[in-house]
Amino acid sequence: MEIISSPMEMQNTIKDLKSDGSVIGFVPTMGFLHEGHASLIQKARETADIVVLSIFVNPTQFGPNEDYDSYPRNFEKDVQLAKQLNVDMIFHPKSEEMYPLGEGMSITVNERVQVLCGKSRPGHFAGVATVLAKLFNIICPDKIYFGLKDAQQVAIVDGLIKHFHFPIELVPCDTVREEDGLAKSSRNVRLSDDERREAPGIYRGLQEGLVAVKAGQTDPNKIEKHVLDSLKEDIKLGSIDYVDVLDYPDLNKSKTLSGRFIIACAVKYQDARLIDNIVANLNEPHTGD
Amino acid sequence: MEIISSPMEMQNTIKDLKSDGSVIGFVPTMGFLHEGHASLIQKARETADIVVLSIFVNPTQFGPNEDYDSYPRNFEKDVQLAKQLNVDMIFHPKSEEMYPLGEGMSITVNERVQVLCGKSRPGHFAGVATVLAKLFNIICPDKIYFGLKDAQQVAIVDGLIKHFHFPIELVPCDTVREEDGLAKSSRNVRLSDDERREAPGIYRGLQEGLVAVKAGQTDPNKIEKHVLDSLKEDIKLGSIDYVDVLDYPDLNKSKTLSGRFIIACAVKYQDARLIDNIVANLNEPHTGD
Repeated sequence: MEIISSPMEMQNTIKDLKSDGSVIGFVPTMGFLHEGHASLIQKARETADIVVLSIFVNPTQFGPNEDYDSYPRNFEKDVQLAKQLNVDMIFHPKSEEMYPLGEGMSITVNERVQVLCGKSRPGHFAGVATVLAKLFNIICPDKIYFGLKDAQQVAIVDGLIKHFHFPIELVPCDTVREEDGLAKSSRNVRLSDDERREAPGIYRGLQEGLVAVKAGQTDPNKIEKHVLDSLKEDIKLGSIDYVDVLDYPDLNKSKTLSGRFIIACAVKYQDARLIDNIVANLNEPHTGD
Repeated sequence: MEIISSPMEMQNTIKDLKSDGSVIGFVPTMGFLHEGHASLIQKARETADIVVLSIFVNPTQFGPNEDYDSYPRNFEKDVQLAKQLNVDMIFHPKSEEMYPLGEGMSITVNERVQVLCGKSRPGHFAGVATVLAKLFNIICPDKIYFGLKDAQQVAIVDGLIKHFHFPIELVPCDTVREEDGLAKSSRNVRLSDDERREAPGIYRGLQEGLVAVKAGQTDPNKIEKHVLDSLKEDIKLGSIDYVDVLDYPDLNKSKTLSGRFIIACAVKYQDARLIDNIVANLNEPHTGD
């Protein structure tokens, strides 16, 4: 397994690899890998010839009061896991290599961002889109793999690819969960024992929303109320940031659901803000998480 | 010569062409080709295996009061010229193919835009950068060719490539002029006979600036004054939009010139706004236009 930090070296290496027609599968991450990432890497391993993993904690997607400095990092452990998963190449650049001229140019995102995490994190998805555009140009992947846990991110990446005509196939992958239902996240390690014990209540709340949909409820506000009631009962240490029921992937709020939708929420704990969601389809009531 | 309008077909065609290692040279234009474009195409023909020309009048780089609708177009004539110049492929998409999801995502440019044409054309270079990023992803060129007549555009493209790590070499090409010195431009056809007769005064004004530099003047304000005095004498029908002397390609205004600099101006006529410039180097006083 190669570890490359220079964008130019990465570009040249990929160019050589692609010359024989190899399909490049790319899993972009901020490191501190867990089973969620592992499932993306496994999917890439199954569906691409060369698997490239990037590990880069991107400063421009963190707000001034967010956890860029304290975002968990463990490069050595990530490298071990990547080796076990047969990753071919890790791209691990420094910030100054990704932003050689600073931030004088960036991607502005005016759609799918005024809701969910975009609402609480202004500029977050612009930072995500900007760094992904750079990574796409450096790694030239044929396929990219994203977890549906960050469903809004998947919607933004879908838009990024279509708007800018990146010749890339987006492969969304199901959320990986702990046995008690908590979505896997690098930030879970920052929960206290008590917080960790109540956090599975987040997924239970989302499931209550889905139960209401299955019982015939199609009014997003009423579905949100079901989720909120459940969360308020279970979540005492955390504070609820939002609960939203929206069309997916457009992320518009309709008066009545039809077709694909997302039930999503975010909960803030002392040192970690957790997000989770269920994406389902009204026309296929047994699909979804 | 192939003419392709579908971005996806273009992408697939290029993918096949690149598989044998062919170097793709790309000349992006808005059509209504003249000798300036021809010189870019010739340069591409000399330095690449496959020459792709795009003809697309990009709506997002025109302001609301600018000349998008009346911008001169003559596709048939462009095709004939392209054939004569041995272009391999013309990419001629429709707006709705370039902006399939509208304008929900775009590139924001915060540097090198508050001066020269950027000052008089807010949003212009954001539109340029956005459409170029799309074109780069569709055509995947190895080399791109731009005329130094649009020196600020060259500076922006230089930034776009470096910021977003496009694996592309930028080849700036000298301004092509009429015999009387007027820079070639698609907009020249919109000059009245009288305007056309006085327009060479623009280049003479710029040359007066260069004369002052060669005589030892390094104060940008004083050089601008030389240019302005000359323009005021020659330009009666047009109005002077700006005269600027700046470092190049950073486009900052220093107190004293050192190294590369640009003397640039824009003049507005009834139906055409003309720009021109001289890029030169203080350390190599005989270079430049």
